[in-house]
Amino acid sequence: MTVKDMLGRSSVITREDALKKLEEQFPLPALDTEMISISAALNRVLAGDIVSPENLPEFNRSTMDGFAVKSADTFGATEGRAVYLTVVGESVMGTIPDRALSKGEAMKIATGGSLPDGSDAVVMFEFTHPLDPATIEVVKPVAPLENTIQIGDDIRKGDRVLSRGHRVRPQDMSALASLGIARVSVFERPKTAIITTGNELIPVDATPSLGRIRDSNSYSLEGLTADAGGLPVKKGIIPDDYDRLRKSLEDAIDDSALILLTGGSSAGAADITAKVINDIGQPGVLVHGVAVKPGKPLIIGLIGSKKKSKLIPVFGLPGNPVAVIICFELFVRPVLARLAGLAPQATLEITSYRTVKARLARSISSKPGREEHIPVSLEEKSDGLWARPIFGASGLITTLVKAVGTVVVPLNKIGIEKNEEVDVRLF
Amino acid sequence: MTVKDMLGRSSVITREDALKKLEEQFPLPALDTEMISISAALNRVLAGDIVSPENLPEFNRSTMDGFAVKSADTFGATEGRAVYLTVVGESVMGTIPDRALSKGEAMKIATGGSLPDGSDAVVMFEFTHPLDPATIEVVKPVAPLENTIQIGDDIRKGDRVLSRGHRVRPQDMSALASLGIARVSVFERPKTAIITTGNELIPVDATPSLGRIRDSNSYSLEGLTADAGGLPVKKGIIPDDYDRLRKSLEDAIDDSALILLTGGSSAGAADITAKVINDIGQPGVLVHGVAVKPGKPLIIGLIGSKKKSKLIPVFGLPGNPVAVIICFELFVRPVLARLAGLAPQATLEITSYRTVKARLARSISSKPGREEHIPVSLEEKSDGLWARPIFGASGLITTLVKAVGTVVVPLNKIGIEKNEEVDVRLF
Repeated sequence: MTVKDMLGRSSVITREDALKKLEEQFPLPALDTEMISISAALNRVLAGDIVSPENLPEFNRSTMDGFAVKSADTFGATEGRAVYLTVVGESVMGTIPDRALSKGEAMKIATGGSLPDGSDAVVMFEFTHPLDPATIEVVKPVAPLENTIQIGDDIRKGDRVLSRGHRVRPQDMSALASLGIARVSVFERPKTAIITTGNELIPVDATPSLGRIRDSNSYSLEGLTADAGGLPVKKGIIPDDYDRLRKSLEDAIDDSALILLTGGSSAGAADITAKVINDIGQPGVLVHGVAVKPGKPLIIGLIGSKKKSKLIPVFGLPGNPVAVIICFELFVRPVLARLAGLAPQATLEITSYRTVKARLARSISSKPGREEHIPVSLEEKSDGLWARPIFGASGLITTLVKAVGTVVVPLNKIGIEKNEEVDVRLF
Repeated sequence: MTVKDMLGRSSVITREDALKKLEEQFPLPALDTEMISISAALNRVLAGDIVSPENLPEFNRSTMDGFAVKSADTFGATEGRAVYLTVVGESVMGTIPDRALSKGEAMKIATGGSLPDGSDAVVMFEFTHPLDPATIEVVKPVAPLENTIQIGDDIRKGDRVLSRGHRVRPQDMSALASLGIARVSVFERPKTAIITTGNELIPVDATPSLGRIRDSNSYSLEGLTADAGGLPVKKGIIPDDYDRLRKSLEDAIDDSALILLTGGSSAGAADITAKVINDIGQPGVLVHGVAVKPGKPLIIGLIGSKKKSKLIPVFGLPGNPVAVIICFELFVRPVLARLAGLAPQATLEITSYRTVKARLARSISSKPGREEHIPVSLEEKSDGLWARPIFGASGLITTLVKAVGTVVVPLNKIGIEKNEEVDVRLF
């Protein structure tokens, strides 16, 4: 769907259509992998399914501190009519009992201890009384298998434990260790070139002469890229110049999975970016202008790497520091997720967990025909979470610092009323 | 509040009381700091307030593409009664115009461009028509300051931009760069010693003989510690032996901010841990047993480092791999947040953002007198998010792999009904 701007010119497309265009024309390349220690695997993405090489547990274990018994011996036991069992030693942690249990016998056992042959359940200490060193009273029956885990109950040899495309969490590190898997194959982090353009921009450690400003967008992009699982590679600042930009893009193609350009907020700079992307080769610019505020001047393109015969997505992000972050979240993050090898389900989960419900502390108005993303702060009050829109001129640094996320006014709505429940997308 | 267990013995305390005991007796030590590049500052905690060294912007800027004007010249302009202005050149990006604006004049300007002296507003291109190369028609008035940002409008020299204890986000990296702050002072990550105890435990790359299992908890603790802003330092596996454990703790004291012990799930092992913590010195064990399931055998202690004359918190975590994660989230994460230098507000925010609302897909029952934490998976359906409790024997690895968080049944409730809305605390 093409959206008409305020003067009736149709020049921009919706967010959904922009993403669809890119998805249709960008075949995911083969992703490189590497083997790493599970200690280093937090937040990395598995490059293959994890299939259990063994049964877990590999021996029948107790899940309680108590006595291993034959369950049938305890049937009918009550406080009034206790069952008497002979204690035949203890199952020592880390070993297998050297003796099987016969009828009428019990063996002391701790949580995690190995059940002796002949036993099929564990009576908790609480339901036993010692009579003499060799005899206990049992005052409650146990069912067969009660308070035990049998061989393979947790994981069976050959079970798929984790899937390709899963992002490793702390508990997965524990699961892998349990199975004796010390190293895993993960996808390499997608190398993301960050190129800043703009005649007015200078490095952070330079003192600006009047009229110039420091490059700041490359820093938020560095943080966002790392957070999204990419490996940011900053390429520095280049002026708004066709030849310099073209050389910079061509230099970045062969060792990048993705290229982000930022700056060049003026119309002339955007034209240069679009021309360079088109001239480098097919398919070139896919999207130039989206019905999103802030972020309207966004360019999305695909350029070819001859050396690696694959396509590289290129994003021409606006110069406005708020728009850069919003465009990253809406357009770049989903592409980075694919390039990082994340399964679609994992991507979905990560997105929905980055959203919280809150009530709007102030009404928002918006023009129809564009999707508006309003930065908000969050306040926790006794009656719940409140989202407070941050107004002010476009592109202020203070907006960024105060904001923890955004609220979206959809394409065809003219606003959201105070007190309405909204989804706050955190960034 | 002391809670009686199922046999009426009072032996465990509530989660709140356990945390309060630790907070009361643990004075936060002076935290070490380091200077780092803002490129490396993502998720690090600021050790001091950030005060702006300059005004932002340092010159009056346009926020639109258009013409810089004297706003008074445009008052009363309409499509029918346009105002004619003489175009006197262009404000070139990255420079200050060499000429001031006089009455009846306009200067072409791009977003981010510097306003010429004498101008106080910008008319957007959309509301102008070129008449000849040197003249434009303006068809809509602008108010004074409209479409501009004046010196210091965004940030004023001396303003506090970010506070001590704030965790750096991508947008903060951008804000710091804008102000020319290339390096920041952050708190060092708290070194967290992870010691595994248990005669039955072997390293992940060893093949277990029957009755033995691999150390897996040290890996989830490694991941959780890193995620919580700590620096995990694994100290290996030691047997359930007083002298070995004492030596291991004494070795760890001087270069750790925090010590985590895991394993030793049997009652005997816990007794050794408690004795070692008490013998090393005052105040020793503060908490032994909490009214939390799973996690009841938790030990919390404070031991003194003679060399650094400060107290180090020690947690004796249960051996159950699910309990380890739940105890970390409930008890260790808040302490790590303090040791990492996070401001209380930042800690609160992080906790509330790690919580999502969902409806319960199955009823849960619980025994009163303990706070029960039920691992759940989440499913996104057309009618919203559903939390599905994961049942099964205690301490299964599969529980960990399937779970994305927990639902809490409070101390005095006996369960939660299906379809009820619950808070899912993600882990």
